[in-house]
Amino acid sequence: MVQLNEEILHKVITKRPEISHKGTFGRVVLIGGNQQYGGAIIMSAEACIKSGAGLTTVVTAEKNHSALHARLPEAMVLAFWETTMIYQVLEKADVVLIGPGLGLDKAALTLLKGVLKSQKEQQWLVIDGSAISLFSEYNLSLKHPEQTVFTPHQAEWERLSGLSFIQQTDENNRAKQALLGAKIALKSHRTTIYDEAIAYYQNPLGNPGMATGGTGDTLAGMITGFLAQFEKNIDTIGAAVYLHSLIGDELAKDHYVVLPTSISEALPRYMKKYATERN
Amino acid sequence: MVQLNEEILHKVITKRPEISHKGTFGRVVLIGGNQQYGGAIIMSAEACIKSGAGLTTVVTAEKNHSALHARLPEAMVLAFWETTMIYQVLEKADVVLIGPGLGLDKAALTLLKGVLKSQKEQQWLVIDGSAISLFSEYNLSLKHPEQTVFTPHQAEWERLSGLSFIQQTDENNRAKQALLGAKIALKSHRTTIYDEAIAYYQNPLGNPGMATGGTGDTLAGMITGFLAQFEKNIDTIGAAVYLHSLIGDELAKDHYVVLPTSISEALPRYMKKYATERN
Amino acid sequence: MVQLNEEILHKVITKRPEISHKGTFGRVVLIGGNQQYGGAIIMSAEACIKSGAGLTTVVTAEKNHSALHARLPEAMVLAFWETTMIYQVLEKADVVLIGPGLGLDKAALTLLKGVLKSQKEQQWLVIDGSAISLFSEYNLSLKHPEQTVFTPHQAEWERLSGLSFIQQTDENNRAKQALLGAKIALKSHRTTIYDEAIAYYQNPLGNPGMATGGTGDTLAGMITGFLAQFEKNIDTIGAAVYLHSLIGDELAKDHYVVLPTSISEALPRYMKKYATERN
Amino acid sequence: MVQLNEEILHKVITKRPEISHKGTFGRVVLIGGNQQYGGAIIMSAEACIKSGAGLTTVVTAEKNHSALHARLPEAMVLAFWETTMIYQVLEKADVVLIGPGLGLDKAALTLLKGVLKSQKEQQWLVIDGSAISLFSEYNLSLKHPEQTVFTPHQAEWERLSGLSFIQQTDENNRAKQALLGAKIALKSHRTTIYDEAIAYYQNPLGNPGMATGGTGDTLAGMITGFLAQFEKNIDTIGAAVYLHSLIGDELAKDHYVVLPTSISEALPRYMKKYATERN
Repeated sequence: MVQLNEEILHKVITKRPEISHKGTFGRVVLIGGNQQYGGAIIMSAEACIKSGAGLTTVVTAEKNHSALHARLPEAMVLAFWETTMIYQVLEKADVVLIGPGLGLDKAALTLLKGVLKSQKEQQWLVIDGSAISLFSEYNLSLKHPEQTVFTPHQAEWERLSGLSFIQQTDENNRAKQALLGAKIALKSHRTTIYDEAIAYYQNPLGNPGMATGGTGDTLAGMITGFLAQFEKNIDTIGAAVYLHSLIGDELAKDHYVVLPTSISEALPRYMKKYATERN
Repeated sequence: MVQLNEEILHKVITKRPEISHKGTFGRVVLIGGNQQYGGAIIMSAEACIKSGAGLTTVVTAEKNHSALHARLPEAMVLAFWETTMIYQVLEKADVVLIGPGLGLDKAALTLLKGVLKSQKEQQWLVIDGSAISLFSEYNLSLKHPEQTVFTPHQAEWERLSGLSFIQQTDENNRAKQALLGAKIALKSHRTTIYDEAIAYYQNPLGNPGMATGGTGDTLAGMITGFLAQFEKNIDTIGAAVYLHSLIGDELAKDHYVVLPTSISEALPRYMKKYATERN
Repeated sequence: MVQLNEEILHKVITKRPEISHKGTFGRVVLIGGNQQYGGAIIMSAEACIKSGAGLTTVVTAEKNHSALHARLPEAMVLAFWETTMIYQVLEKADVVLIGPGLGLDKAALTLLKGVLKSQKEQQWLVIDGSAISLFSEYNLSLKHPEQTVFTPHQAEWERLSGLSFIQQTDENNRAKQALLGAKIALKSHRTTIYDEAIAYYQNPLGNPGMATGGTGDTLAGMITGFLAQFEKNIDTIGAAVYLHSLIGDELAKDHYVVLPTSISEALPRYMKKYATERN
Repeated sequence: MVQLNEEILHKVITKRPEISHKGTFGRVVLIGGNQQYGGAIIMSAEACIKSGAGLTTVVTAEKNHSALHARLPEAMVLAFWETTMIYQVLEKADVVLIGPGLGLDKAALTLLKGVLKSQKEQQWLVIDGSAISLFSEYNLSLKHPEQTVFTPHQAEWERLSGLSFIQQTDENNRAKQALLGAKIALKSHRTTIYDEAIAYYQNPLGNPGMATGGTGDTLAGMITGFLAQFEKNIDTIGAAVYLHSLIGDELAKDHYVVLPTSISEALPRYMKKYATERN
């Protein structure tokens, strides 16, 4: 297992090609934010767009559209009931994130099933939050596990893997990841990323000032934004995880609590720094 | 009676434990903000979350959800009519604040009665603003007075204690507090905190630039946020009161009026400063 | 006629009394912002609250409440249809502003008539924008002209006074002001303030970068906020007019266009500066 | 063909006349932002108003009004269904922008036809985004092509000109522009502006950090704002195009992705700089 360090940022955050357009940096669909948890998908969207995704559509309860646009007019929106349109944007998406603030009701389940079923060759899927719980509870399956990332915290990993907290040893986690086939970013005090039955990366950074609602939603948005524009692999997931904590540690130097939205705010400057130093 | 000073901040604002998660820093429910006074609960929420509470749900009129999310996606929301869900989040709450902008109508009374009735062992309750007026008018009672904080201004204290302004001497206030059993943060030019028939703390700070709508809502949110993550006692209430005024005094050095939201904005930096200097 | 200068700021912007509360700095009602012009009353509210008014209620089309709260949770809100509540807050108001973005329809007229009729002893009234046009068109009258301020631009003054642009000489304006009895802040390249048949003050400041939608709404809000907390007289109106342009001139040093909201943003610092230098 | 450089900014961004008012700097109507793409017209509005347009009305789906006002109270609003009012503001408009986020449905087509039909002598029209696609698909025609600007990206230009990407040579583009009669700002890696069968200007600036959703909407808003207040000609379009990229390049020095709204935010300072240096 490799401890993540700044090298992963230099490796992943490449300089953008001169000749490029919005599509070059990925078409993303973010799905979440119900009646109660609208803020979650808003935070994911901020992280995704401020990390540089090209074109981002947010599928969320219609009551959340106004707040999202007030903070981030760069996002496009669809309501949960706009089924036809949702499948049109999913059709063209390079990366799909489902889960932040999605909730556990029937509509959420239907949407998750639809996303799983419509996953295409080359399309990556990030499954977070309540979508992980639904996936576990209903024993759903993946069409393209190798293009799928789960981002559970420990309780969600318990549901997904069947491993109790005590059983969540590195060895057991690796075995369960192999069964699932998908990549796993297991969030904890020290987030670990699993793939191909290996615990690839461990994140040495992060601090307790980040233990506040929305930190995970922001990370999920960053992973999605990174996958949209950089190589779609475990390194890119590692770079997102590492940078999320690195910014959090920097902010924690003079903030008692690190608001998740302040991490997203800082993204364009930090990414520039790492893209420049090496390239 | 002790004059509050910076010692209280060093004492209360502890360094966060390395191994921790959102729940470590408390589950909070904030209830208030009707059709007319939505801004009040928004300001409480900003103070609560920016002081570091772990997970915060705001129960407010649905028309306020969008503005709240536009300012603060870190909050979760419920509407007043979502009764079942409200009692679900109350069930898990470590601290509940009720009152800022709640209003005085029947729905407000019903909600207040429900909150009082559902208060659990270990669950703290902060009663502010119109909830104090309702509590007084309807002679309501507390299940766990020792885990309850009232934050009246002088007119609200008159309603709650029956003491006219002139009668609000320290001695009379102490006697009434003893009868109520709850902690009292009596807001005034020099806020005093009463507990166990004693005038524990007096706040020597504060300035007239803070005399503007929302200052009390912000203080209520800070007290709630502090109780969510630090020891649940009179010191923690004192620290919130003192820091609120300390930041207000700092801002007043170059601001004629101190907007309440600017106090909340400054919280993460000030709290870090006091957490760091000693720990 | 006196050219306004910094003296007026020192004279009017007094240091706040140590023993004070929200009510000390005035209860304000701002009325305006229909379906089309919601931004106008939002800008007035920002100017009013950031200049230090104690308690501010904004009466505006309900569709504007969310945007207002998203920018300024310090404001309280009522919708145009909440007639009973509107008259309750008017009853207690120290200063009322009516007009910014109010529009010219029947509902606007009804509201204006109601405000004029309910004006009380000691209550000041600021009439701006479309309320001036309605006042003129329907030949309405004032109960307390000496406590009323009109803030017309030149076309509105034409409607109110019957003076064509060419006829708007200082002498004619003074005569018309005497007939009306109310104070007049006639906005132009060099705003002039009339009272008691005298052209009291002329404002030498201001710049063409301020010629953009919302500048007048902001000025109306500042005049209202100043009247709420300082002596209710022509000096206070003069101070608001002068400071509005002074900030505008400062901002214009490095901004091609001066957004009205940026003037309000700067208010607390500028007011502190002038309150401090002398007091 | 001339490469744009800073000279164009000095030439176009004139010092404002001392004696002036809101109307001096143009009345603008911006039309776009449907159910899904509300952010697009919000971004256009920010660019238009922050570049200094005098009075700006935004015609957009009513669900977008609140977010627009939350970000930019300086704008006035109308909903798509307020047909009578729309034609009233169009009647007085100096410049009209139609297209950002407008969509392709029947209502959009009807509105576009109405705008084209109502174009008046002296009124300029900027046609962007989906309005270009509709214009092409339905073979619509212009009343005043010499007062019309199309701002297509390459795929939209293909629809409008019938030229495939490969056929989009400078010579072919010039010929097609001559047929259309309108000015063309053909957006690409190096935007080129065509008029009178000539490739007038090419923009040497811009960077791949700007390749993100909303960059084109922002440019369309800037072109509109510039035409509203400066001379209505090809130079003014060139200045808007050049400044948009110049700010983008400056921001890209320390931002990996350049959010379109950050370009608008910077406009008042940059415009002041170029207005001052020469005038």
